[in-house]
Amino acid sequence: MNYSELYESQVKSYCRSFPCVFDKAKGSFIFSDSGDKYIDFFDGAGALNYGHNNDYIKDKVIDYLSDDGIIHALDMFTAAKESFLEKFHQSVLSKLGDYKVQFCGPTGTNANEAALKLARKITGRTTVFAFTGSFHGMSLGSMSVTSGVEIRNSAGVPLDNVVFMPYCAGSGFEFDTLDYMENILNDDHSGVDIPAAVIFETVQAEGGINVADIEWLKRLEHICEKYGILTICDEIQVGCGRTGDFYSFERAGIHPDLISSSKSISGYGFPMSILLIKSKYDIWEPAEHNGTFRGNQIAFVSAKAALEFREKNNLKNEVERKAVIISDFLEKELLPLNSEISFRGIGMIWGVDFSKIDATGELTHIIASDCFKKRLIIERAGRHDTVLKIMPALTIEDDVLLEGLEIIKASAIDSLTKIR
Amino acid sequence: MNYSELYESQVKSYCRSFPCVFDKAKGSFIFSDSGDKYIDFFDGAGALNYGHNNDYIKDKVIDYLSDDGIIHALDMFTAAKESFLEKFHQSVLSKLGDYKVQFCGPTGTNANEAALKLARKITGRTTVFAFTGSFHGMSLGSMSVTSGVEIRNSAGVPLDNVVFMPYCAGSGFEFDTLDYMENILNDDHSGVDIPAAVIFETVQAEGGINVADIEWLKRLEHICEKYGILTICDEIQVGCGRTGDFYSFERAGIHPDLISSSKSISGYGFPMSILLIKSKYDIWEPAEHNGTFRGNQIAFVSAKAALEFREKNNLKNEVERKAVIISDFLEKELLPLNSEISFRGIGMIWGVDFSKIDATGELTHIIASDCFKKRLIIERAGRHDTVLKIMPALTIEDDVLLEGLEIIKASAIDSLTKIR
Amino acid sequence: MNYSELYESQVKSYCRSFPCVFDKAKGSFIFSDSGDKYIDFFDGAGALNYGHNNDYIKDKVIDYLSDDGIIHALDMFTAAKESFLEKFHQSVLSKLGDYKVQFCGPTGTNANEAALKLARKITGRTTVFAFTGSFHGMSLGSMSVTSGVEIRNSAGVPLDNVVFMPYCAGSGFEFDTLDYMENILNDDHSGVDIPAAVIFETVQAEGGINVADIEWLKRLEHICEKYGILTICDEIQVGCGRTGDFYSFERAGIHPDLISSSKSISGYGFPMSILLIKSKYDIWEPAEHNGTFRGNQIAFVSAKAALEFREKNNLKNEVERKAVIISDFLEKELLPLNSEISFRGIGMIWGVDFSKIDATGELTHIIASDCFKKRLIIERAGRHDTVLKIMPALTIEDDVLLEGLEIIKASAIDSLTKIR
Amino acid sequence: MNYSELYESQVKSYCRSFPCVFDKAKGSFIFSDSGDKYIDFFDGAGALNYGHNNDYIKDKVIDYLSDDGIIHALDMFTAAKESFLEKFHQSVLSKLGDYKVQFCGPTGTNANEAALKLARKITGRTTVFAFTGSFHGMSLGSMSVTSGVEIRNSAGVPLDNVVFMPYCAGSGFEFDTLDYMENILNDDHSGVDIPAAVIFETVQAEGGINVADIEWLKRLEHICEKYGILTICDEIQVGCGRTGDFYSFERAGIHPDLISSSKSISGYGFPMSILLIKSKYDIWEPAEHNGTFRGNQIAFVSAKAALEFREKNNLKNEVERKAVIISDFLEKELLPLNSEISFRGIGMIWGVDFSKIDATGELTHIIASDCFKKRLIIERAGRHDTVLKIMPALTIEDDVLLEGLEIIKASAIDSLTKIR
Repeated sequence: MNYSELYESQVKSYCRSFPCVFDKAKGSFIFSDSGDKYIDFFDGAGALNYGHNNDYIKDKVIDYLSDDGIIHALDMFTAAKESFLEKFHQSVLSKLGDYKVQFCGPTGTNANEAALKLARKITGRTTVFAFTGSFHGMSLGSMSVTSGVEIRNSAGVPLDNVVFMPYCAGSGFEFDTLDYMENILNDDHSGVDIPAAVIFETVQAEGGINVADIEWLKRLEHICEKYGILTICDEIQVGCGRTGDFYSFERAGIHPDLISSSKSISGYGFPMSILLIKSKYDIWEPAEHNGTFRGNQIAFVSAKAALEFREKNNLKNEVERKAVIISDFLEKELLPLNSEISFRGIGMIWGVDFSKIDATGELTHIIASDCFKKRLIIERAGRHDTVLKIMPALTIEDDVLLEGLEIIKASAIDSLTKIR
Repeated sequence: MNYSELYESQVKSYCRSFPCVFDKAKGSFIFSDSGDKYIDFFDGAGALNYGHNNDYIKDKVIDYLSDDGIIHALDMFTAAKESFLEKFHQSVLSKLGDYKVQFCGPTGTNANEAALKLARKITGRTTVFAFTGSFHGMSLGSMSVTSGVEIRNSAGVPLDNVVFMPYCAGSGFEFDTLDYMENILNDDHSGVDIPAAVIFETVQAEGGINVADIEWLKRLEHICEKYGILTICDEIQVGCGRTGDFYSFERAGIHPDLISSSKSISGYGFPMSILLIKSKYDIWEPAEHNGTFRGNQIAFVSAKAALEFREKNNLKNEVERKAVIISDFLEKELLPLNSEISFRGIGMIWGVDFSKIDATGELTHIIASDCFKKRLIIERAGRHDTVLKIMPALTIEDDVLLEGLEIIKASAIDSLTKIR
Repeated sequence: MNYSELYESQVKSYCRSFPCVFDKAKGSFIFSDSGDKYIDFFDGAGALNYGHNNDYIKDKVIDYLSDDGIIHALDMFTAAKESFLEKFHQSVLSKLGDYKVQFCGPTGTNANEAALKLARKITGRTTVFAFTGSFHGMSLGSMSVTSGVEIRNSAGVPLDNVVFMPYCAGSGFEFDTLDYMENILNDDHSGVDIPAAVIFETVQAEGGINVADIEWLKRLEHICEKYGILTICDEIQVGCGRTGDFYSFERAGIHPDLISSSKSISGYGFPMSILLIKSKYDIWEPAEHNGTFRGNQIAFVSAKAALEFREKNNLKNEVERKAVIISDFLEKELLPLNSEISFRGIGMIWGVDFSKIDATGELTHIIASDCFKKRLIIERAGRHDTVLKIMPALTIEDDVLLEGLEIIKASAIDSLTKIR
Repeated sequence: MNYSELYESQVKSYCRSFPCVFDKAKGSFIFSDSGDKYIDFFDGAGALNYGHNNDYIKDKVIDYLSDDGIIHALDMFTAAKESFLEKFHQSVLSKLGDYKVQFCGPTGTNANEAALKLARKITGRTTVFAFTGSFHGMSLGSMSVTSGVEIRNSAGVPLDNVVFMPYCAGSGFEFDTLDYMENILNDDHSGVDIPAAVIFETVQAEGGINVADIEWLKRLEHICEKYGILTICDEIQVGCGRTGDFYSFERAGIHPDLISSSKSISGYGFPMSILLIKSKYDIWEPAEHNGTFRGNQIAFVSAKAALEFREKNNLKNEVERKAVIISDFLEKELLPLNSEISFRGIGMIWGVDFSKIDATGELTHIIASDCFKKRLIIERAGRHDTVLKIMPALTIEDDVLLEGLEIIKASAIDSLTKIR
């Protein structure tokens, strides 16, 4: 029995699915303390887009540490922040439009908390619209816009000031969900106020890899403009290049008013989060949203290096190329296994949906456990966890990617046999 | 004009008080990019109890990074976590009693969010008591138990399910504040439910360095036991040795049901937070409170090293010794300047209160600005920021400590002259 | 300028539409103090189903008063309450099933407040589902389940713990609204808890005379049973015989768990309200919901007499007969005026919808004002008040009914001409 | 077993304390259906200040009914309302200052709901201050400002947007409660916003007959003016002459911004309520707060007659005279029974406090039950119902008053013997 089992709260979860002690990691592999080597298709839930312990970034980090670069500085001006901002502006910001960067407490949920506060402050309204299938975080404000019913119940208080709208994909609605939303906004007897903001993901990851199409995103933005509603795009899981562009909304040519970013923004698994704010909406008072770790200097160093690495390695092209490898494999190798299997995705986030074979999630549980035995780490998502989530590092080598996909196939075959 | 000024949100705050670009740091000094050297009495708001870039910790961190120790692993079992838990149990946990450790998202506010959720889940009640003068964080749940009225207004929604009780110090009440609380709990016409929990600091830092006395803490615990109310002790700013013991409540011999820790827990300024839970209350469901960065491996490494450093250097004794240096200086050098000045504190957190001379905070603003000119970084706290907060690293050398204190004195003299 | 104009709050409303001072009333006529006689198609918003100052009821009331029957007795046992309960049980309750009667504060909104409290107490849940287009009252609890956005904004606080579902009629949804609701209930990522109750009207009066069909009502009950959700049927405006049966839900053969009744329950315009509770759900503690006027004795006397009158005059048949008169008239005389006019209704509540000609409500305002000039009192309802609401006393004589309908026609013709 | 026992919800309460069926009433007597005659010291919880079935009022009511005066007219102009307003202005309003009258739904709780909405609308703030010991009603808004913890729990949802302040009497606080309130308002770290309004009773009836002294009321008004907080004076139970003046606040010379009135306002036990609004604050939109029974015409008739009766019989003097009779009796006859008995009150509302002998309320239960056996109807109030509430009609004859007081004495003697 290890120390985690002895002293760690039973709230722990992933260690239950992947029950061994890990000690080292490199690229798309992680290693147990007994030397076993695992392919990682989980990718720190999207925090490791550049792979584990990326050497390019690592060197910059070790240099900074060795040189006694300042590590903790709250939100003071630092050389590390200056360098990051310069690079981030050049690589990302300058292409998006006129945005300001807010450094939030270093978690995604904190960026969403900041976005919700700011949107309410800007508009003077309290209600926010969120979507069925959404996930935005575990602190009280973010939890209130998160769709998972069990998560919501854990709050212990009613989660108010939020109204859920039907999402365009994965929620089982066959009508036009934006017609629905616009009807609600138009109707003086809808029971629902014009909201301060709509918070959305362009690809719902936790909700089951539900990809919004471009027309829906464009029209969502259009409706929000019409009613004076702010748009908050949560790019925490699918930003930082996961879908090809740096931000996933870029494919739709939209310009969200607020954009929350975390997970892979530091590039090395270090905690960091930022909120992008259209300049005209940057009406914060000084210190109105603060936090001890909002200037994680080592993360600024790695984040800058990550942007450099991204460009040097043309990751956007890599993502597009590997998207084809994954979808081809799923099409040709997985679908034939059972006519009830479906898949969906974009860039390097894909879901294989087994809900029609087993809506309880038991089948995907069996498959994922079997994958682990075969040395692949893969997680589940979606309604009752019925969707296998394929989310490798963007840097994964083609052969490792195919090796992982083959493990999925093998486990699926074994498990489908078992369940029959 | 630097990049922060160009692209960072105007929410930024400390950079306004300390307007230069910092690049390196060591011990109790930080350095600007033009080579100026500043004494740090601010200490990352309590995140740098072991000083900047502590060499003992730094070596372990660089070794871990160099060796490709796994950096990001969510809440999987890792060798780094095992080592931290072993050391933390030996140094801290085993002395406190039967507690479990929850690794939260790496911010203090996240640990408080978890504590509030868990307390409500355990008791099935919704109300929580907090105290006037409190600060617990900026995400919605933590903000709801934070006393600052401006901070609360920034939420944009009513902050519900919380009732504020009068704190024993610093809030201007002259009656017995626990009598008041007990009357409320006893009275069937108080308008107030028995709460799920009372969340408290033993020393309110942001509230103005208000130190609860031991009898008050003991009686608070006693009342909570009597009514079946959980105690949540927020040790985020004054834990990790700041007051002498590892946790500040230890001086009162109490055993809070939930203990939130962050800031200096990683020892090196890396984001990390933990929640300690009495074992009998560890009723979380797996994954009921999660987060991407709840296993910040590099912070586990530094946190373990910090505990080792603390013991090797007998920091508890150091704190007690330096507490005398500080209070003696304040008594003998500051108080004589003006009969309206007062001071208070414990261990290595002290406040000099200028509110009776100027209740608006303008005077302390002038003093702190002057200190900065004289190369000392110091912050303000309390009602309208009328209290100078002295919070150096626990490792500060005596002469540097005295040098900093002399700067305060000099600035106070200059500023008092100006204001007359 | 009269005393109301001098001293009454500007919140007053109907007096603005019908600007003269009334002093007497009889049957379907009311009389101004200058002797003008008006036909009443408004019927006290449904409070005067038996006509104004119904002689049969009036005699019983005067006898009771003259004889010094006790007028105010809170909720003590009284002879008047005994008589009412005996009659109400015989006429109504015994046919519905096993229900208990709660005498609430004498307003409809109070009965709904009681229902919401009880439903939450029974289930231990907080959320309630209400429908777009609904109206349930103006106190805070009832307002929270009322759909009108302006009304909701008047609360001055967020109206929480309620989720709005699309109603089957009048809300502009073309998909199956119960499929929608069931999807939400089924989906573990809907963002919406299983509610304590669904509160509904079988005919939304204020929402625009939207009539739920029988299959929808049956299926709503079925879904609620499946998920353990209580049904609260608000019969305040359309109960007491308005649709034919005593309660409007009877046509669907359903058995709501809680039934709120007011308006015409006293039969004479006296304030009274009751909540019917399935016996198994009558889990109130004594006095858990109370109120000074919950035993309005004179209303018990009139309410008993009203039930007697209803039976003696076979009002159910009358309603069915007059429903045909009204719908025939609307079909043959109103629809031909303009192809964009539509109408809907049941029993003796009908709406003529002009929204396709003018969605702002200006046209119906002109028509209703013109009706008043022609000595007919008629109100508007629905989205932006675009629906003329025809709601005469159930006792109206056929010739008076037709006279009123002819006035509507004449005003419609005049107004449509004007608006062109 | 009677019909109430068979069919009425178990929420019924007073019938449990006074278990017989009443049928007639006159003045200060009520009669059971078996002819037993009871003295009434309960007075419809304050709704029958002019006695049961007051002949002067009764004649006007029967005339109005006989003459087919309009009974139900929503908020249209009517002759009955005109007459009431003329008289109310002459008798009451003209002496108070520049107020408007809002006719609310006919219950006290509805007037308080309207007051809370309007105060929030005027100020744009959400929080309201209420006092420990308060009672304001049972609908959700009023319940949120009501202090009884059991009542609050019956809501089934958290009661938000309210902060309780310590009342000056009866709540067990020995410090200056307005100092406390002002400290909270002043403190930028109190956790409490400046509220929209403070709602208060000058004599807390349900809270245990706690009488605010004049200086406290004046200072409360002064503080509220200083901070721009509206004052809402709830005169529902102790207004309409109960304390001498028509409104109980008049003794302090204050001018509340909003005044809610109900219970005895109609003078005959008919449901009616009004809200008085300082003219400058009458910013309602038409129909922004409405209700079916806000124009209870028969109550207008009786209310006008009641004001006439009050003047003809000089009830203010009567109250002052009888106050002496009651307090003398309590002083000389009750206090000597046991040194732990205390009493308090004003005008014709008095409480005899037995809490020091028995804090559970069992003793007062025994006394009140014994009184009922001796043909006196009396209720209990206060913490755990430990206070006997003496509240006869203002019109009670001296000998009947003394007869009732003697019954209390006799029952107290018997019960104190029993309990020993």
